[in-house]
This record gives sequence, structure tokens and C-alpha cells, in this order.
Amino acid sequence: MRFATLKDGSLDGRLVVVSRDGAHAAAVPRIATSLLDALQRWDAVRPALQEVQDALEAGTAAESVPFDPHDCAAPLPRSPQWLDGSAFLNHGRLMEQAFNTPPIPDFDTMPVMYQGASDDFLGPHDDVPLPDEAHGIDFEGELGVVCGPVPMGVSAEAALACIRLVVQLNDWSLRALGPHEMKTGFGFLQAKPSTAFAPIAVTPDELGDAWQSGRVAMPLHVQWNGERFGAPDGREMNFHFGTLVAHAARTRRLAAGTIVGSGTVSNVSRAAGSACIAERRVIEKIDEGAIRTGFMRFGDRVRMHAKYADGRDGPFGAIDQRVVRG
Amino acid sequence: MRFATLKDGSLDGRLVVVSRDGAHAAAVPRIATSLLDALQRWDAVRPALQEVQDALEAGTAAESVPFDPHDCAAPLPRSPQWLDGSAFLNHGRLMEQAFNTPPIPDFDTMPVMYQGASDDFLGPHDDVPLPDEAHGIDFEGELGVVCGPVPMGVSAEAALACIRLVVQLNDWSLRALGPHEMKTGFGFLQAKPSTAFAPIAVTPDELGDAWQSGRVAMPLHVQWNGERFGAPDGREMNFHFGTLVAHAARTRRLAAGTIVGSGTVSNVSRAAGSACIAERRVIEKIDEGAIRTGFMRFGDRVRMHAKYADGRDGPFGAIDQRVVRG
Repeated sequence: MRFATLKDGSLDGRLVVVSRDGAHAAAVPRIATSLLDALQRWDAVRPALQEVQDALEAGTAAESVPFDPHDCAAPLPRSPQWLDGSAFLNHGRLMEQAFNTPPIPDFDTMPVMYQGASDDFLGPHDDVPLPDEAHGIDFEGELGVVCGPVPMGVSAEAALACIRLVVQLNDWSLRALGPHEMKTGFGFLQAKPSTAFAPIAVTPDELGDAWQSGRVAMPLHVQWNGERFGAPDGREMNFHFGTLVAHAARTRRLAAGTIVGSGTVSNVSRAAGSACIAERRVIEKIDEGAIRTGFMRFGDRVRMHAKYADGRDGPFGAIDQRVVRG
Repeated sequence: MRFATLKDGSLDGRLVVVSRDGAHAAAVPRIATSLLDALQRWDAVRPALQEVQDALEAGTAAESVPFDPHDCAAPLPRSPQWLDGSAFLNHGRLMEQAFNTPPIPDFDTMPVMYQGASDDFLGPHDDVPLPDEAHGIDFEGELGVVCGPVPMGVSAEAALACIRLVVQLNDWSLRALGPHEMKTGFGFLQAKPSTAFAPIAVTPDELGDAWQSGRVAMPLHVQWNGERFGAPDGREMNFHFGTLVAHAARTRRLAAGTIVGSGTVSNVSRAAGSACIAERRVIEKIDEGAIRTGFMRFGDRVRMHAKYADGRDGPFGAIDQRVVRG
């Protein structure tokens, strides 16, 4: 199933089921008031939602309307928790060099994860209001999962079964503020303004063969101001999403609707390019001896779109945003 | 005004206004469905809520019932954000010694703050389910504020005016997990299970002279298994709550209902005792050369109750919880 949330002035927005060709959508107010509501009552509402999806594919949906991603909020405009890992070790190791921070202990064997704000997510085409270009405005292309209720102490394998939806996201970052917040030990706060999401959240089965043991095996195509920036593949994720969810739930339960992110998608091959500017900058420094690329300016745009290995568009739709002075 | 939330099986619970003597409460379903709902529509609902408070005090409230804190959830059982500072520098400096972590840069001039989980708060008498005594189970007695909507980039002074309510809380901590999470730079996650709150959230005017320039000038009395543990005073907070809220809102707006905590209340005078075990342990090490006190065991209880300087009970009520195997 494929879900999106239309902006309607409410905090949780209006849930729609989206056809697989992305052309049509059907509102489902009699089944669930919002995607969060559906996740909280998943077993009860899932069959009815599946019927709507099937009717959309068959062209028999009673009240389908044209689907426009520009009308979309994040699939979950707010969620109970937003927890972001750093599961691509290639990225993490490069960032240690970029930020000149000490090596993270046990980085190869234990996920790292920060808790982000989950009350004010951005939609796929929303402007990104930020206070100051000097903060080092950067994007981070990521994949993520949305959970049902997760019990405390769940195993990584059992956590995989708690995953309800897969999402694509941009973990907006302010690089001039991050290193100080890492040094405090208290983690990112000012360095992480509101996170943005691609319009469509999908059940893992929608990914077909691209859902591989809790990883999304798809290249995430990133363009900055219309130019290719990178297309690293999600298959190189060192910890799968079940491991990340279990890490988050070690000492507490997670409410239905909790979102867990992969961290910046990153591949060992330099040919893949990068999904964030900070990583490209440190690669320039390592490979060429000097940083050539600056961070984003007000008015800049970034576009992110996961595609299948054969080049077909992925199911999430695209994030395409402009940074503006807040 | 004084508010509490009765458990009713819903995520946000049932809002009641509590009489100043703590004996009676009146539900207000025709004014607001929950405290979060009231905070989201504060200007519209405030006069009607004040009328209920006034009627409770006058003994003329139409539908008041006896108030029992054991029926209470946290005033906000879930909130948009939970951000906890470390605004008592005395505590922070002692914790650096306790955890043997490097000095936090700019600690005297810039607040440190972590983002905690805000989807699953504990009520004042709820058991605290935790997986393992070996994690170093500790309490942290704190004060906090609940905000209305806060714009990005607000000043510390303007942030003071965004404060709607004051709360008392216990930021449950797992000390064996904290130092590793600080070293990752990503901040506390597994080290911070669900936070607990005293039953009553109050508007700042309810504190009278104890609300001093964005600080709560009241000793927080802490008892562990019935024995006095400490009573440090909130007046020694080095950054006031307006400064903490402004820090949180530097690069993003905060939704109505966001909670900002003080960090562990801590006084320079050793006579005040401590509001967490880790602090007492490091004081034992410094003053006596050896740590005598262990962390909590399953079955242990902790009670926290802010009182006025003259010994009268404060308006928040008490937190009184038992740790149990999760």
C-alpha cells in the first residue's frame, strides 16, 4: 500500500491512498482520520485500506481524485518519535574526518542514533526556512521506516516485523553548529532543524526485491540546483532497520508511528557521489587536498528521488525543496 | 491555574482543573479535550478555564469531584517535544568528574540540551519498568516549563512570555549507558527511558514569589526509600527557562506543548544534598575518597516534592514511584 497526507490545516493532515502509477489518490475518512490514526489501529484498518488500494489499481475506486505531490505534507506531519541512526559506516568515518571529532567507540558493532524533533516535519515541496547561511546549510538524503508499537527489549529480528512503512527523507543539517553539539555529548539539537519527507510512505512489500533483509536496495538520486550530486545505494547500509529499531527500543517502548532513519546514504565507491555536502567536502579534501564546494545558499534547491536499479522511479516520489531566509 | 490529567485510556487523557488545596478537581470537557488541546488553543480557552479555577476556590464549581493523584497520568502524557537542559552548572561540573568526560566547551555561557522521547511519559505514581539493574538506575529531580508556540529565533526575554505552565519531573537515567552515548556525540537515547511528572502543572503566577525571573525558587525534596536524599533549591539555576527555550528555538519553531527541563537541580552547598544518585556518588568520591552509594534496585522507591522555602507543600504535588523489572 502507498499512503500520502494532504495538507488540510490540521496537525495530522488528511490520509489518502495513492495509486501505484502516482496519478490518483483516494481519501479514506471512514477508515482512518490520519496516517497516525491508521498506524495506531493498523490491524483493524489494514484490510479496508488494502481494498482501497486494490480498487485504485483496478480503476474502480469510487472517489479517486488526481494526486499532486505539491498538496502533500510529510506522510506523518508529526510523529511520536523521530530517531536517526548513522548506519552507513562509510559516511560516519568520513564525517569524523570532516568534523575532526574523535573516533566513535564501537562504531562498527553498535549503532549510533540521535533523537530529533518530531513535531513539525516538512512536506516534499515545502520551503525550508532557516535563520543564517553562515550555519552551513546542508541536506542529508536518507531512507527510513515507520514502526507499529515496539516493545522494550525487542530483538533485531522481531523489530523487523514491527516495521509498517518505508519512507525517504531529507535530514536537514546545519554543519557549523553540529561539531559543538557533538562535543557537549548531549547530541544534535540546533544543528537539526525540521526534517523533510518524500510524499509517499509505502508498505515494505511495495518495494519488491528492493526490500532486502531490512535494507532498501535502491540508489537515492540527489540533485543540487539541477545538477547531479550523487546516487548512493541503500543496499550498503551496515546495520539493517531491524537492528536500528531494536537499538532505539532497548530501554523503552516505542509508540506506533515512531520513525527511524538510516543516516545519510553513502557508498564506498567514489563514483556513487554523495547524499550530503559535508561528505563531498571531506572527500575533496582527502582526494584533492582542498575543499572546493560550499554549503547551500538561500534560494538553492535540492531534489532527492530514490529509483530502482533499472532506472524506474521508486515509489516514494521526490523531495524538491528550496532553502529560504527564516 | 492548576491542571492535571486523569487516565482514561486515551493517549492525551482527561484534563481537570485542580483546587489550590489539592482536594478537588473539575473536568472541563466542554472547554478542552486535553491539556494539549488547551495549550494549542490557549488564548481562546484560558478565560473559561480561569472561571472553573475561581469556582473551585469559591466552592461553587458545579461538578467537582475529590482529586486523587494516583488517578493521574503526567499532565501531558505525550507532548510535541521534550528538551532537557543542564542549567545547574554545579551539577554539570560534578557529572564531568563522575563520568570522566572532557569539559563541555562554553559550558558557562551556552546551555547544553538533549532531545528526549516525548511520546510516553509516566504519571506520578506509575511503576517504572526497566530491563536491568546493571544499567545503573538513577533518578534526576528537575523542574520544567511547558511552552505555547515559540517562533524560531526568539530572544530569551521573549521566550519567557511563551511559557504557559511550570512542572516538576523525574528524568529517569541509566548511568551505565550514558557515558558511551555522550562519547558518540549523538547524545542520550538508551540512557534516558521514559520521564515522569508530578501530577499538577501550574501557571507561573501560581508560584507567587517563588517564580523569580524564569526560575523556580523552591527546594526540591527528594527521598529514596523513605530517607532524605537532598533538597536542592531551584533558585541556583544558572540559565533561566527563557534562555533554555530560546536555545531550543534557535533554528526551528517549537509547537505548543513543548516541555523544556532544567536538568538536575543542584546547589553548591553540600548541605543541600543531591537530586540524583550519580551526583552523590561523585561527591562521596571527592569528599571522602570512595563511593559508598549504589544505584537503585528493583523495588526501590523515590519521592520528589517541591516545597516553598517556609516548608509548605508546593503546587505540583509529589512524584512517588517504584522501579520494577520491565
